[in-house]
Amino acid sequence: MADSMTAAVIGLGSMGWGAAVSLLRAGLPTTGVDVRAEVLAKFEGEGGATAATPGEAAANADTVFLFVVNATQAEEVLFGPNGAAAAARPGTVFALCVTMPPSATIDLAARLSKAGMLVIDAPVSGGSAKALTGDMSIMASGADEAFDKAAPALAAISAKIFRLGNEIGTGSQVKMINQLLAGVHIAATAEALTLAKAVGLDLQTVYEVISESAGNSWMFGNRGPHIVQGDYTPHSAVDIFVKDLGVVSSEAGAAACPTPLTETALSLFKEASAKGLGREDDAAVAKLLAERAGIKLPGM
Amino acid sequence: MADSMTAAVIGLGSMGWGAAVSLLRAGLPTTGVDVRAEVLAKFEGEGGATAATPGEAAANADTVFLFVVNATQAEEVLFGPNGAAAAARPGTVFALCVTMPPSATIDLAARLSKAGMLVIDAPVSGGSAKALTGDMSIMASGADEAFDKAAPALAAISAKIFRLGNEIGTGSQVKMINQLLAGVHIAATAEALTLAKAVGLDLQTVYEVISESAGNSWMFGNRGPHIVQGDYTPHSAVDIFVKDLGVVSSEAGAAACPTPLTETALSLFKEASAKGLGREDDAAVAKLLAERAGIKLPGM
Repeated sequence: MADSMTAAVIGLGSMGWGAAVSLLRAGLPTTGVDVRAEVLAKFEGEGGATAATPGEAAANADTVFLFVVNATQAEEVLFGPNGAAAAARPGTVFALCVTMPPSATIDLAARLSKAGMLVIDAPVSGGSAKALTGDMSIMASGADEAFDKAAPALAAISAKIFRLGNEIGTGSQVKMINQLLAGVHIAATAEALTLAKAVGLDLQTVYEVISESAGNSWMFGNRGPHIVQGDYTPHSAVDIFVKDLGVVSSEAGAAACPTPLTETALSLFKEASAKGLGREDDAAVAKLLAERAGIKLPGM
Repeated sequence: MADSMTAAVIGLGSMGWGAAVSLLRAGLPTTGVDVRAEVLAKFEGEGGATAATPGEAAANADTVFLFVVNATQAEEVLFGPNGAAAAARPGTVFALCVTMPPSATIDLAARLSKAGMLVIDAPVSGGSAKALTGDMSIMASGADEAFDKAAPALAAISAKIFRLGNEIGTGSQVKMINQLLAGVHIAATAEALTLAKAVGLDLQTVYEVISESAGNSWMFGNRGPHIVQGDYTPHSAVDIFVKDLGVVSSEAGAAACPTPLTETALSLFKEASAKGLGREDDAAVAKLLAERAGIKLPGM
């Protein structure tokens, strides 16, 4: 089945690129689409095919992966001019790997279904390094038929698929809860290490002790060293959490559910972005706090 | 050395009790002090000695452990009527295991030093279960002489001692940073699971997915099940974090360092306490959020 199966990846950013090269590595003929010509040239260098438009890429694909940045872009590449939905064969599986509001996922999936397509609500996590090695996680929901058809492609890009039932929206909702925690924990890491510095502690020591204590988090372990070493090379970015916590905030608002920590963290990411830190690593929110505290962290 | 060494434990709450029975188990004659007669009787049942006052307990001890609740109580048992400081022999080691403002630790230690005592700034973590088995962690700073003298007693109560240099205050400061993260993560866990419920997700599923994802934290792993199962039996308590985040807030204020997430979490714990949840498990802050959202979590 994998032999005859073809894939398309729309959006070759850090996660989409990793998925696309993982598909090639697994032997699936894969067509990539991106607005950046140099990325397309690089993908051809990896042995991939490229297309000028989402429609062209989707026309011959069995599974189409969407890895664009947000719901607006997803709508555009699916239903805009030369969009994928009108060009794809009925029965094509669309894997929506974009972190977007569950309500947007549900809306786009309904329109795809109406056009005769199969849909998987499939936001991913794990970061660019895991994407490159085909080891990302997928928080996935959708019909069994869609999972069955896309199985070889999903297996190629992921080490772990959380099957979250048949309902479109569930994958995006669970991802949203994950992003709530991830964003708050990054901001908490920044706050904790800024205070540690302000009271005169050695940051490396604090990092080592907390890593083995009840204050630890996945994000503290992962982003803490960025702050300790003053290295804000963007693996993720401040602006990603402006978007992702914005999704949490709007969906929570629609559910009339208070999310005070999300609001606090979101306002920090927004302010950091407004100060020009939007494209730095998300841990750069620490620079904002340090500036307010009148201290200097490493790398400032 | 362990044979001839004696210990006193002032305050037989959950952590102090665990330390005291761990000292007995290690073969160190140990005297316990507590305001609750039934706890003293129970400690005698374990083979411990008891004393009526901190002074009486400290008079014959080589190492005195303080496990009272806060800085006010620590001051009282050390320097109040029948206090430990006046009764202890010069050269006695005082291990200050209370989570209190670093500034209070520094002040009390200076007064103990002036009275000829040795001091270890030694806040602990790990929870009551680890305390019982002698497996707590200690974030410890102080002079080598104090550590050398107290070594058998410290070894009896802990699985891990982080040696954080000679300066009194460092142990308390690192513990404060740990509590900042612990408190924010508990509140974030509550916020995330409340939102998950509000949008209709299955809490157990969310718990399992997040536990293996980038949104995970030590507290999410530990407190999440309390919320999923609706079991608010107090292992720690809401009021502990009213106190501990209050310490962070006041020390951060003194350092002119902004701690917006701490302030947000602190206000949630305070409001939960005001609503009568102070002695429930700290995860009960979720009940407050659920009530605001107009939904019911398990156990409500």
